[in-house]
Amino acid sequence: MKRIVILGSTGSIGASTLDIVSKFPDRFQIVGLAAGSNDQILEDQIRTFQPKVVALSCPDAAKRLRARVGNAQVEVLDGEPGLCEVAGFPECDLVISAIVGGAGLKPTLSAIQAGRQVALANKEPMVMAGQLMQQEAHKYGVTIFPIDSEHSAIFQSMEGHRKVDIRRVVLTASGGPFWDWSAIDLGHVTPAQALKHPNWKMGAKITTDSATLMNKGLEVIEARWLFDLPASQIDVVIHRESIIHSLVEYCDGSVISQLGHPDMRTPISYAMNYPERVPLLPPLLDLGKIGKLTFFPPDTEKFPCLQLAYDALAGGAGLPATLNAANEVAVHAFLNNQIAFLDISKIIQETMTAYCPTPLSTIEDVLEVDQWARRTAEEIMKTCMTPV
Amino acid sequence: MKRIVILGSTGSIGASTLDIVSKFPDRFQIVGLAAGSNDQILEDQIRTFQPKVVALSCPDAAKRLRARVGNAQVEVLDGEPGLCEVAGFPECDLVISAIVGGAGLKPTLSAIQAGRQVALANKEPMVMAGQLMQQEAHKYGVTIFPIDSEHSAIFQSMEGHRKVDIRRVVLTASGGPFWDWSAIDLGHVTPAQALKHPNWKMGAKITTDSATLMNKGLEVIEARWLFDLPASQIDVVIHRESIIHSLVEYCDGSVISQLGHPDMRTPISYAMNYPERVPLLPPLLDLGKIGKLTFFPPDTEKFPCLQLAYDALAGGAGLPATLNAANEVAVHAFLNNQIAFLDISKIIQETMTAYCPTPLSTIEDVLEVDQWARRTAEEIMKTCMTPV
Repeated sequence: MKRIVILGSTGSIGASTLDIVSKFPDRFQIVGLAAGSNDQILEDQIRTFQPKVVALSCPDAAKRLRARVGNAQVEVLDGEPGLCEVAGFPECDLVISAIVGGAGLKPTLSAIQAGRQVALANKEPMVMAGQLMQQEAHKYGVTIFPIDSEHSAIFQSMEGHRKVDIRRVVLTASGGPFWDWSAIDLGHVTPAQALKHPNWKMGAKITTDSATLMNKGLEVIEARWLFDLPASQIDVVIHRESIIHSLVEYCDGSVISQLGHPDMRTPISYAMNYPERVPLLPPLLDLGKIGKLTFFPPDTEKFPCLQLAYDALAGGAGLPATLNAANEVAVHAFLNNQIAFLDISKIIQETMTAYCPTPLSTIEDVLEVDQWARRTAEEIMKTCMTPV
Repeated sequence: MKRIVILGSTGSIGASTLDIVSKFPDRFQIVGLAAGSNDQILEDQIRTFQPKVVALSCPDAAKRLRARVGNAQVEVLDGEPGLCEVAGFPECDLVISAIVGGAGLKPTLSAIQAGRQVALANKEPMVMAGQLMQQEAHKYGVTIFPIDSEHSAIFQSMEGHRKVDIRRVVLTASGGPFWDWSAIDLGHVTPAQALKHPNWKMGAKITTDSATLMNKGLEVIEARWLFDLPASQIDVVIHRESIIHSLVEYCDGSVISQLGHPDMRTPISYAMNYPERVPLLPPLLDLGKIGKLTFFPPDTEKFPCLQLAYDALAGGAGLPATLNAANEVAVHAFLNNQIAFLDISKIIQETMTAYCPTPLSTIEDVLEVDQWARRTAEEIMKTCMTPV
């Protein structure tokens, strides 16, 4: 019986994780759940899965939840300290880290520092502080299993093969809903259009990141730290159908890849059951029926965010954290109709230009850059935006 | 230093193997070479690679070779016993089995019974006597590494994953030069047309087998024994570009596959260096440039040979050996302009119909069926053929 904590239980990854737990009650037990402010969904999850501890980062939501479920049934914590306490809950074997954005950094770090194995869906902590995260994981003997479909594909394509033989990894990208739009049309994209992903059902932040290709940029940075590979060995190819989830090319010409229907339960379940697999038994992957898989080189002129991520990796220090923070601010503003779609990359680029490198030796240093970048992006947003 | 014997050194796989040996002289040493009747190529190979023992199955060719190189330089054996002696040569670590057709059965078995690791390109022995071959391999502690690109792909896609989690394997087939021809046009196929494979450069027998889809049928039977999977877990999909070399589908929805340019040096090198890889460094697999990969369900009405192979597996006993022998006879006749392309499957089917099941407990039983099937196929050929 594997005891599970889910950070971000009310989101899309959280729901898929709980679906797997329900299907295999003999394998998994939920001991802790944490979320942002959705006390209603969390209440339902408490009644179904009976965790020992829960937390909501919003204190008011936690108060409402306590009033309804009572501390007798479950301990309800709140705020970032509450999330971190759930992350480090002692009677736990695996923490599913699926909070959206930089807010996941401290709780994920708490899980690592408590020596828990971590299944990581929340890519932003790895983008902001990948080197520090891996140093801590090494120090506490923690394996970080990727849940992102691309990184899970790379992880699975490396299993059984020697890392020293890797020539490069290739992340596949769907290209999002706008890959064949003209630059002019991209100027008029609405949030509703950006939220229609062609292949994957995901949350609003990551779906918008897919539309700008920033999601792939963040994944390049994530891959750099997860697999300890230089940026020069990490490539991206547009693959419209999202069937090949990523590839690993070896020095003898062999390329190993992982494919499947776009269903996050597959990579989540792999991380939860590694090195075993459980019979989710989705429909067979009928390539004869799918007919064709298409590929294109990425267009970094029309979608500059991908190139910005490579630039951030090349610049190092706090530049990836700056990129990530500015992106979170800009995407939030775009989804609230405050800025245009094409402003997202401009705000990120200008924030990156304003960054002065300082050495990062602690998580506090990273969080300082994060806060600075958020303030700076807000300032830039006020001055340079085209009216929506 | 790995000491290598090549059975079938003058053929296409033999040449590719020697190419790898030349590139990595610190890793490999050729100790034995065996071929059919091409004494000229073998003489060149002797002068370049200086093996300790060689054999030609044709005694006249061996005589010519002896006259030219002299027994002082290398021992020249002949006939099937000669091939078997080279296969079991004591100072050897790995035997590359790449003789064409059923003629490879006894030499390959000699290698196994001498306890040599075997890299198998010669699929017919596994088709004729898969169960017996695997029993012997088990008895002598021998690992059989596949060299066929499809089986190497499956082998590589199983490494690092649990066999118990496999849902099915999917062999990819290029479909050969005629996959989109009409049934009427297939009646007029010439040997020259059949020998133009769209993707792979191979010998005449296997190229013709690719054109009839019998090659894929033989590979289904080979996979059944190599990987100990029932026929119900072995599927085939037509994949025109021969980039995905085969796939393994697991119970959680993950599909692992191996891809690459169609170059036999990659699977050969993998078998030679397992579990390591060496830097052959072919051009990177640029999917963005390739653009698309296409897939179709196989058409077993237009290409009945694939279905005949499944029927042979279902019938068991000597039926796969019958299928293989009749196919060798028919392909030989087709390449000599004695029968039409569409007669190949008819001859095989009628030979299979004439087969009366008898228990097979030894290789001699298998060879008896093989001889019976060859005679029967010859007889059928005389009576039922459309004039070419």
